[in-house]
Amino acid sequence: MEKRDDQWKRNLAPLLKPQTIAIVGISGGGTGMGGSTAKNLQKFGYKGQILAVNPKYDEILGLKSYKSLLDIPAEVDLVVVAVPAEAVLPVMCEAAAKKAKAATIYTSGFSETGEKGRQLQVELVKICEENQIRLCGPNNMGTLSLRERVMVYTAHIPEDIKAGGLGFVGQSGSMTMCALAAAYARGIGCSYLITSGNEAVLEASDYIRFMLDDPATRVIGCFIEGFKEPDKFRAVADLALEKGKPMVILKVGRSLKGQEAALGHTGSMTGSDAVQDAFFKQKGIIRVDEIEELVETAELFLKSKLPKRNRIAFTMISGGGCGIVSDISHQLGLEIPELSDATCQALAPIVPAFGRVGNPLDLTGTAYRNPEMYYQCLEILLKEDVDILCIDPDIPWIEPLIPKAQELAAKTDKLLTIFGLTSENMTEAKRKMWQDSTIPILQDPKRGLRAVKSLVDFSEFLEKRSSETPSVGVSSVDLSKVKAILGRAGKVLTEYQSKQLLDAYGIPITREELAHTPEEALEIARKIGYPVALKVQSEKIAHKTEAKVIRLNLKEDREVLTAYEEVLSNAKRFNPVAIVDGILVQEMVPGGTEAMAGMVADKQFGPCLVFGLGGILVEVLKDISMRVAPLGKRDALDMIEEIRGFQILQGFRGKPRGDIEKIADVLTILSRLSIDLRERIKEIDINPIAVYPEGEGVKVVDALVVLN
Amino acid sequence: MEKRDDQWKRNLAPLLKPQTIAIVGISGGGTGMGGSTAKNLQKFGYKGQILAVNPKYDEILGLKSYKSLLDIPAEVDLVVVAVPAEAVLPVMCEAAAKKAKAATIYTSGFSETGEKGRQLQVELVKICEENQIRLCGPNNMGTLSLRERVMVYTAHIPEDIKAGGLGFVGQSGSMTMCALAAAYARGIGCSYLITSGNEAVLEASDYIRFMLDDPATRVIGCFIEGFKEPDKFRAVADLALEKGKPMVILKVGRSLKGQEAALGHTGSMTGSDAVQDAFFKQKGIIRVDEIEELVETAELFLKSKLPKRNRIAFTMISGGGCGIVSDISHQLGLEIPELSDATCQALAPIVPAFGRVGNPLDLTGTAYRNPEMYYQCLEILLKEDVDILCIDPDIPWIEPLIPKAQELAAKTDKLLTIFGLTSENMTEAKRKMWQDSTIPILQDPKRGLRAVKSLVDFSEFLEKRSSETPSVGVSSVDLSKVKAILGRAGKVLTEYQSKQLLDAYGIPITREELAHTPEEALEIARKIGYPVALKVQSEKIAHKTEAKVIRLNLKEDREVLTAYEEVLSNAKRFNPVAIVDGILVQEMVPGGTEAMAGMVADKQFGPCLVFGLGGILVEVLKDISMRVAPLGKRDALDMIEEIRGFQILQGFRGKPRGDIEKIADVLTILSRLSIDLRERIKEIDINPIAVYPEGEGVKVVDALVVLN
Repeated sequence: MEKRDDQWKRNLAPLLKPQTIAIVGISGGGTGMGGSTAKNLQKFGYKGQILAVNPKYDEILGLKSYKSLLDIPAEVDLVVVAVPAEAVLPVMCEAAAKKAKAATIYTSGFSETGEKGRQLQVELVKICEENQIRLCGPNNMGTLSLRERVMVYTAHIPEDIKAGGLGFVGQSGSMTMCALAAAYARGIGCSYLITSGNEAVLEASDYIRFMLDDPATRVIGCFIEGFKEPDKFRAVADLALEKGKPMVILKVGRSLKGQEAALGHTGSMTGSDAVQDAFFKQKGIIRVDEIEELVETAELFLKSKLPKRNRIAFTMISGGGCGIVSDISHQLGLEIPELSDATCQALAPIVPAFGRVGNPLDLTGTAYRNPEMYYQCLEILLKEDVDILCIDPDIPWIEPLIPKAQELAAKTDKLLTIFGLTSENMTEAKRKMWQDSTIPILQDPKRGLRAVKSLVDFSEFLEKRSSETPSVGVSSVDLSKVKAILGRAGKVLTEYQSKQLLDAYGIPITREELAHTPEEALEIARKIGYPVALKVQSEKIAHKTEAKVIRLNLKEDREVLTAYEEVLSNAKRFNPVAIVDGILVQEMVPGGTEAMAGMVADKQFGPCLVFGLGGILVEVLKDISMRVAPLGKRDALDMIEEIRGFQILQGFRGKPRGDIEKIADVLTILSRLSIDLRERIKEIDINPIAVYPEGEGVKVVDALVVLN
Repeated sequence: MEKRDDQWKRNLAPLLKPQTIAIVGISGGGTGMGGSTAKNLQKFGYKGQILAVNPKYDEILGLKSYKSLLDIPAEVDLVVVAVPAEAVLPVMCEAAAKKAKAATIYTSGFSETGEKGRQLQVELVKICEENQIRLCGPNNMGTLSLRERVMVYTAHIPEDIKAGGLGFVGQSGSMTMCALAAAYARGIGCSYLITSGNEAVLEASDYIRFMLDDPATRVIGCFIEGFKEPDKFRAVADLALEKGKPMVILKVGRSLKGQEAALGHTGSMTGSDAVQDAFFKQKGIIRVDEIEELVETAELFLKSKLPKRNRIAFTMISGGGCGIVSDISHQLGLEIPELSDATCQALAPIVPAFGRVGNPLDLTGTAYRNPEMYYQCLEILLKEDVDILCIDPDIPWIEPLIPKAQELAAKTDKLLTIFGLTSENMTEAKRKMWQDSTIPILQDPKRGLRAVKSLVDFSEFLEKRSSETPSVGVSSVDLSKVKAILGRAGKVLTEYQSKQLLDAYGIPITREELAHTPEEALEIARKIGYPVALKVQSEKIAHKTEAKVIRLNLKEDREVLTAYEEVLSNAKRFNPVAIVDGILVQEMVPGGTEAMAGMVADKQFGPCLVFGLGGILVEVLKDISMRVAPLGKRDALDMIEEIRGFQILQGFRGKPRGDIEKIADVLTILSRLSIDLRERIKEIDINPIAVYPEGEGVKVVDALVVLN
């Protein structure tokens, strides 16, 4: 949950649209970070007031220079700090006294370095939080507000940079510079571009939220090393979905190495990558691996309508090229449908003799000399039942193609895109010609088609989400039972306690009771009905099979009595001091398909649900799926459908379809339980859960709950 | 096997190093394909004689023009044909009469079009084969011999193109042009570049063999749509391995669509893609998906020593960049080892305060201003225990870095490579500076590191191959038994016959005999020992379980007698007209791990071996591996290790390790059997084969052989 007193962080206008900016630590010659900032502000025609603070000068770069912030007569919105680390706190005290509303601190030497720096940052945060100073940084390179022409930025900015729909936040200054350069090279305009530095006060989520609320920002791009407050990011991700704005994130830390690099750099904590992936999947966030991929994907999202499905068509000018794009599309799961008879008949008289009427459509080198033929084919293809049309631009008459393609794109609800088969087909000169057009340009077949796939996936995600099945109600939680179980528990719950806890939430478990004498065991066995299983319950005996304290399939009284003595003496032998809670007498359940479900508490994202099929699928092939709680029914179904062995649940080799709905219910209830009890429970392991045919439910056969 | 009379195709000197070239069909104005060829030859200083053939002119482009080939007084090595399709055969007849040794036919309209074109090509092949005319094409764009400056090529060639170590063969003219453009942009020189067109006579394998024999060609690149003679390609692949020359192949046809496009284009047959992949894997061939990837990979191979292992280190100038390269390396399976203490200590005083001593090494933006620091770090890292060092070139002083990097690379046995984190770091200007250096340049982190992985894999492949385990001898094949079984067979062999065939080759099968009466069944059962299984054997009853003609685990005489009647009457009910060969009485074998092995005959590559583990792993997860026969022991072991479920065979959850050696023996014997009997056998399905603990062997429990 967001902290109530964080509300002021929602208004980033003083930081990103300041009326007055004071630059503290600007050198007399106008060099250094302060000077670069002043020059950038001046060069791009900042409309507000810029003031310099340097006690040694009266004027710097034509700006009036003051001895201190406090000497400035006007109100100051934003204080830009470029003084050495040891001088930062005094400046910030003055900023507080001056009632400045925002600050950007370029200076390094805070939490990204040793203990001293960390201490300095704690002090810094205190000043900002107490005085509600919206701080960007420290250890950053500034911010760009492209539309408002507020370039509080230390590095070079191309003169003809333009504003546009991409909002970018980067936790790495240099990667943000790379993203800006790549976007500029493609003619992609940004709304805001933020280098967030150490995120002492404002964090990526704050900037993203601000951008989501900005109507001109249509796509969010991020370079992320770690989330300071995952809950805040979760709220922001939900807001993005609500607004239908895609987030394209390059999140490093897939490898341990990646995590280390992140730690070293911003001091932020990187969570387990599998959880990260699960969370992104769950929120429709597009994850990419490199900067070019981020910008190419962002470009496609900015310039595209969302395709309804994944049906793609190509016009090519080479049979070899047809093979390449077909193979890549196929590998990515894009569908290349056959053309309809009508389309084929329409194309046949137009397509050159050695070409190929089909999808991909091969127009051959004839297209070099025959734009009209090319246009006619495009017009015909746009009537075909496909969602995406990709055009190979390897033709000498590319300039006239631009307006034509735009004209065609305007008339259709299909996505029309240009893509280069090799980078030699996408020279800087060609890119320059295209970049102002409304047609998205993909510069590389693999990367580009991957971006198309992301677009299709995002569209499907939104569609699926809008048809969300309501979650099963967990109306009848037996809270007193929950309290009682947890009240007397140690570090783990026994199988019996674990199942009782699940039962209190309405998850179906085996019929069973705890016996304390052989007679009790007999009584319970008869009540439940034979065959039964006996299992010793003790907090100190977690691995029951190993300790030989389980006996299965007992068919009559005599067997129960013998087994009772046996498991009890085995327990004593295994651990003489273990306190035995009792002997669990449990019904034997018919087979069903064995599945497993569980929860692990992630340090960053909290409870994460896990699902898989039992046995080798989980243990050898690690065939599991994961989602972050809370889970909707749709999320739960996605989890189930996602595992590679899903076919086994769908009905396989004459076996009936399993009760998938009921597994989904268990997962959503487990999600609710994990959130309710997140302070107490560290891990839940339900293994196995027997899955019966559709309509016949599921049943937890064994479970273990680990407490904090 | 190569046809004996194909020997003349090995000498491609008349085609690629001709002394005299006659261009037939060159237009008077010197335009068209003939004219372009003459101009290219002239422009690049062809040393031999160029003659024109055009009855209407005496001179074209300064060349003496003859009425016909036969009028030329000199001997002609190479005839270049640029006349319309219908005029090609007469010209080729003249070429034959003139005893020309080679021809290149640009003309389209042969097998790539309809039946008429196919017929024309048959005639063309006849003329060439009879007269041993080494034909390139038809329907191609020519050939380049860069070192010899023989540019028999219809398209534009950059003036400053240089010769080098890449030999390229492309079945698509335009994709070959793309490859040439990409290689040129990177400063990669080619030895030969061939557009092979329809491959009526000479095929890709012929050109590749020629290049493998050329010492200056060090890496082979190919764009392939299909192999005309897979056996020839197999021989060429073996030759490449023998010579240690890597082949980087873009083979389209992964998707059905890809195959169609290939069919439409060259009329060549594309085999099943899984087989293709298996074959490439088996021969150490590097498969890529796009032209840029092909050229980037080829560049790396051309400029690199083969790394011993996969240990990689990076110097970066941004913490964010460290995260990106770590993650990508991790995903690809490259190892980023920790630096040794000695290295860390050596680096610590040099690396800037906000950098990070580690791997990747983060030198921060300080590197912008401090080349000396950068060099020192490189020197230190080159002493570290890594195989590959990647340098981030995003620095303004890139020009002096070039000689320095070359100097360092010359002193080390490690691979030193420059790679761009984004394409903005790899502008055309920067590339130009670097392209003459001996340092390989990777232009994109994903593509580049994938190329590094291919290099590592190739190196490991060669290493593994040099330690090849000798195959098990199949010395004792019972040929008369084989002959007898196949002699009386129909479309399939029964289980009994199938197993007898395997037995004749020495593959272990269950103890079993065929009974024709209940008494015989009893006798056999007693001899084998209880328990036994009974299975009806009939060619007409392939699915025995479905027909209920199997009874397992019969423990005594009485059960055998009852089961005998039962399965026989079930067989009659299932198919009243089925001829029953007898009832198989088979030992019941203890469990073991269930595996499957098999063979499918691929239309192109012939017998292919398949391996997997039984049950859901094969049936649901399609967890199988594949290789093309013949199989070495190493190939067989690779097949076994490759499946995802390999851990199950390695010993898992207390179960012992399976007899992997013996599975490998079965696969190699199966390979031998499949080749011996390739004319007769279409498919073999051994499922299951029981795998026992190490040293205890394997046993075929059920098998089916399908005949041609």
